[in-house]
Amino acid sequence: MATQADRHPSPNHYDIAVAVIVGAGPVGLMLSTCLARWGYKIKHIDNRAEPTATGRADGIQPRSLDLLRNMGLKSAIMAHKPARVYEVAFWDPPKAGGSGIARTGTWASCPSFIDARYPFTTLLHQGLIERVFIADLEKNNVKIQRPWTIKGFTSDEKENPEYPVTVQLEHVDGDKKETVKAKYLFGGEGARSFIRDQLKIGIKHKDPIAYVWGVMDGVVKTDFPDIKMKCTIHSEHGSIMVIPRENNMVRLYIQIASSTDPDFNPRKTATAEEVQASAKKILQPYSIEWENVEWYSVYPIGQGISDKYTLDHRVFLGGDACHTHSPKAGQGMNTAFLDALNLAWKIHAVEAGFADRKVLETYEPERKDVAETLLSFDNKYAKLFSQRPPAANEVAAASAAGAGGGQEENQFINTFKESCEFTSGYGVFYKANSLNWSPSHPAQSHVVHPKSTKLVPGRLCINADVTRVVDANVVHLEQEIPLNGSFRLFIFAGKPSVSAQALRDLATNMAKKNSFYMSYARTDMDRVSHHERHNPHSHFFTCCTIFAAARPEIEISRDLPPLLARYRDHVYADDRWDRRVPDAKACAHAKFGLDQEKGGVVVVRPDGYVGVVVALEEGSATTDALNQYFGSFCTKKLGGTQAQL
Amino acid sequence: MATQADRHPSPNHYDIAVAVIVGAGPVGLMLSTCLARWGYKIKHIDNRAEPTATGRADGIQPRSLDLLRNMGLKSAIMAHKPARVYEVAFWDPPKAGGSGIARTGTWASCPSFIDARYPFTTLLHQGLIERVFIADLEKNNVKIQRPWTIKGFTSDEKENPEYPVTVQLEHVDGDKKETVKAKYLFGGEGARSFIRDQLKIGIKHKDPIAYVWGVMDGVVKTDFPDIKMKCTIHSEHGSIMVIPRENNMVRLYIQIASSTDPDFNPRKTATAEEVQASAKKILQPYSIEWENVEWYSVYPIGQGISDKYTLDHRVFLGGDACHTHSPKAGQGMNTAFLDALNLAWKIHAVEAGFADRKVLETYEPERKDVAETLLSFDNKYAKLFSQRPPAANEVAAASAAGAGGGQEENQFINTFKESCEFTSGYGVFYKANSLNWSPSHPAQSHVVHPKSTKLVPGRLCINADVTRVVDANVVHLEQEIPLNGSFRLFIFAGKPSVSAQALRDLATNMAKKNSFYMSYARTDMDRVSHHERHNPHSHFFTCCTIFAAARPEIEISRDLPPLLARYRDHVYADDRWDRRVPDAKACAHAKFGLDQEKGGVVVVRPDGYVGVVVALEEGSATTDALNQYFGSFCTKKLGGTQAQL
Repeated sequence: MATQADRHPSPNHYDIAVAVIVGAGPVGLMLSTCLARWGYKIKHIDNRAEPTATGRADGIQPRSLDLLRNMGLKSAIMAHKPARVYEVAFWDPPKAGGSGIARTGTWASCPSFIDARYPFTTLLHQGLIERVFIADLEKNNVKIQRPWTIKGFTSDEKENPEYPVTVQLEHVDGDKKETVKAKYLFGGEGARSFIRDQLKIGIKHKDPIAYVWGVMDGVVKTDFPDIKMKCTIHSEHGSIMVIPRENNMVRLYIQIASSTDPDFNPRKTATAEEVQASAKKILQPYSIEWENVEWYSVYPIGQGISDKYTLDHRVFLGGDACHTHSPKAGQGMNTAFLDALNLAWKIHAVEAGFADRKVLETYEPERKDVAETLLSFDNKYAKLFSQRPPAANEVAAASAAGAGGGQEENQFINTFKESCEFTSGYGVFYKANSLNWSPSHPAQSHVVHPKSTKLVPGRLCINADVTRVVDANVVHLEQEIPLNGSFRLFIFAGKPSVSAQALRDLATNMAKKNSFYMSYARTDMDRVSHHERHNPHSHFFTCCTIFAAARPEIEISRDLPPLLARYRDHVYADDRWDRRVPDAKACAHAKFGLDQEKGGVVVVRPDGYVGVVVALEEGSATTDALNQYFGSFCTKKLGGTQAQL
Repeated sequence: MATQADRHPSPNHYDIAVAVIVGAGPVGLMLSTCLARWGYKIKHIDNRAEPTATGRADGIQPRSLDLLRNMGLKSAIMAHKPARVYEVAFWDPPKAGGSGIARTGTWASCPSFIDARYPFTTLLHQGLIERVFIADLEKNNVKIQRPWTIKGFTSDEKENPEYPVTVQLEHVDGDKKETVKAKYLFGGEGARSFIRDQLKIGIKHKDPIAYVWGVMDGVVKTDFPDIKMKCTIHSEHGSIMVIPRENNMVRLYIQIASSTDPDFNPRKTATAEEVQASAKKILQPYSIEWENVEWYSVYPIGQGISDKYTLDHRVFLGGDACHTHSPKAGQGMNTAFLDALNLAWKIHAVEAGFADRKVLETYEPERKDVAETLLSFDNKYAKLFSQRPPAANEVAAASAAGAGGGQEENQFINTFKESCEFTSGYGVFYKANSLNWSPSHPAQSHVVHPKSTKLVPGRLCINADVTRVVDANVVHLEQEIPLNGSFRLFIFAGKPSVSAQALRDLATNMAKKNSFYMSYARTDMDRVSHHERHNPHSHFFTCCTIFAAARPEIEISRDLPPLLARYRDHVYADDRWDRRVPDAKACAHAKFGLDQEKGGVVVVRPDGYVGVVVALEEGSATTDALNQYFGSFCTKKLGGTQAQL
């Protein structure tokens, strides 16, 4: 997908790359993995000689596991047999009085009111996760250059509109230097970002240093019954958070100091032995002995957000370079992944000639808003549970409310529900802009955003099981299109007998020369292999058609016009039963809130967030609305002509 | 687990092994993988220089996938992205008349009346499956010696009671020779078994040569809509079976000759071009072009069964050496796996000192009976579908019958149901003997085989989801104990408040010195790591306790006596909803047909088949019955003494 220019010999002995990525933690690796897969030349450096050896982030939230599966990386991660956290347990001083601790409650870490495919948090050492990405990069001939560091950079579109960024790189020993010309520079260097400092971008601290934490990874022998659960333990001797890990390991977070302490000192520290002694006291009456300690660290954590994520939409920041916060909710790596993914597909859309350069301007507001939510959530979460854990009936009520009840009177339940949604990753959402339809979007017609739909532009699409028509495989619809950088058109086609004409009209209008679809058609369309499943016509779109019919009733060549029939591996029967809509005949249609007879078209952004929902109608209204939607951010004027495919 | 003697220096320059295994196809690999994992020294040879390169068996049936997952090998197989067959389509000349073919029906390859975890057939090239086993063997330092062949062997228990088998091996070039002394020799060399010939064991042919088949693997371009399904196509130009494969490949079986042909000639053959031309005609009006052909072979297939699987219970045969049949039902590899597994755990039980040598005498009758069923099924299956495919309402009726209805009047439906159960692997069963309880078994008391149970000794245990107590993980109960060669004791404990005394009594009686459990206790029990999950007390037993209670209500240290509490990773809450028993409070208890208050004990053989079911009662009756059951085939006299753990 990279332009020919990328492969030109470098002028003036400069190395040339589409993007220089600094830092090979989760954010940098996600960005380079996406860009490398989509055909872009990457220069990726890290100042560490090896991937993370011990410690650091380890929590993969439910929605991030969906993403990793969509990238084909889930099984490599699961091969390490990570711990899975389904529930969180709360331990406090016994209510009845007396010494020690007692379990006061448990709650699901991803309760059933969230329609998650994997309702658990996956815990695995960050280094192992990094290696899964590194192995994938190597398949695309990208090798992280280590240990190298960035020494300086300039960015000037006027001087060089094609490769405006010049980056100076150096081996950490100082004995080798390189200059790279690039279209983009990305700083994923963590909290102490050189690039952010050079850009003189400040950090807004909510609380300069809010906590000092001790973190210890190791193997223990204990009779504490919840050692394989995530636990929040409050005792008169202090607080601990327990996180289970792979290989019989456990991570203990021990709060050494908090800004709420009367004698708070952000430089307070503790030795491993002190922390172990402290843990022993906190866990009484249970015993705990350490068989080995793999990692121990003390670090002060401030809540901070970078003022800007970019100045010129050429040099970008992401991950810990943009936001720091307590590790307790396990959000760091997940937020980093989403920063990178958000930027990756937008760079792709711009560089491959589909989207106007302005879409890059949506990166900062979309991701900064999520970081703000994360920080305020981090505070709320702490406060919520310092008051009291949720009672079983409140958890049940929250679940019922989630399933459609209107019990909005209980503040506690609302906060609880929001927390679960947010930490699982399913609650992350983007506000209205050109990509996320709203009533103020340029795309306006009677077919846009049908009233019945349960999808919300800017929020994630809904998970659903369907049956693939060609091979009768039961599949997860949300996983059917790999993370290929394309927009996903889910054409819910209702009943074949009802929607036949609407489907024909949709295909006819999509095939017109100036439609969103044909304006960005592949120039090599005639030479594409008949085995190509996802991008036979365009690198920017993959189409799926889902009928509200039993699989044996569907005949692809009879029920679909040729343009859509070409996606024969992406035709599905909505004939799987779903406990969430037990009485629906077509459960995916029902869950999406689309007409089970007439259907509807759902546009999903390449990162899985809903762009727009359009009713499927006879005539040109459906395609007209799609032309308006894509026309608001793509490079060409869409619609209005009559030329045919 | 291997005895010290195995590591002694070889006397008289002989090499020493517990077992010599000849042939590294599915049957040999399964046997050596099990034995190597359980600590036995293996000599494994194959006369091919490399694993299977192309062609041969490729169908993994649903129950075999359970087994592979239980061995931890499923994800390595799935990493190759095999094809999955959920449905079979039938194509015949159009009923309305005219030329060509039309789809006359489809049916699930593993319909929902079978409670399968993976209701599909997995299709992957045999060589890739072999390599998964070979990689696992290498972890246990077993390397297949290739290309080596067997030149002769003797077996004489009188001469050498410990290593009665002497095997002469030779490199296929004839330039290297070895002599190995072993306890066992296994012939997994395929239909033309040298070992079987040497033993002068005959083959009973049902039909000397029943069919001549052409088989072609490759990539095609076709507009035949079911090319990714398993299809049986009958046309006026001949018959084809279509099997989808990994990597866009397809396998076509084309019948070149059948003994039912008037001019049948078992030596009839056909070139690849002739078969392709024939396929073109059969598929009309659809087109088919071959992009490449990976493998093509013509082979006559006779249905035959070896008269004996062993003469002396030291030299055994398994796999194709014992049974040959048509490949159409995809049973070859699956039957081979089960031959090997059946033998492997019995060798282990005998060699590790648990079972009487007589259990080896159950190998032949158990497995030969399954082979007989396979062959008669192979005939029945062919006949059934040469008559007509099942109608949709018959498929529905079969499902209803499977779900508990009494519609036994329709012969067609019964045969159809039996076929599905058998081909899926869930219908394979073993007849009554010392391992599989029956009313004539020595274990007789009022607690044995409670009336309500839905389990049948000799049949597979039932799959069920439960919640693991220590970490709240939702797990597949049948997968919780790995294939470790141990008997599995599933102690369904009903309500903790009701069963408390019965559990205490069970543990007390199990802890007695001469119980089945303590008679075979580990001698190193005191030094076992507290991380050991499956075999803390004995190499022959792993215990699971399943309460009919919600997870948060269960306290392991309070609700279980110490002997069972030691298996803290194997304590479960039967609190997951199951669509098959939608109204049950404890679905696993309900599916197993066990009392939801009082529970029951299910003994499952190391290969997953039910041995015996015993009610869980206060007093000693439950343990007494278990002592009787195990006493019928183990080496020691069980029960009757009062010594304590």
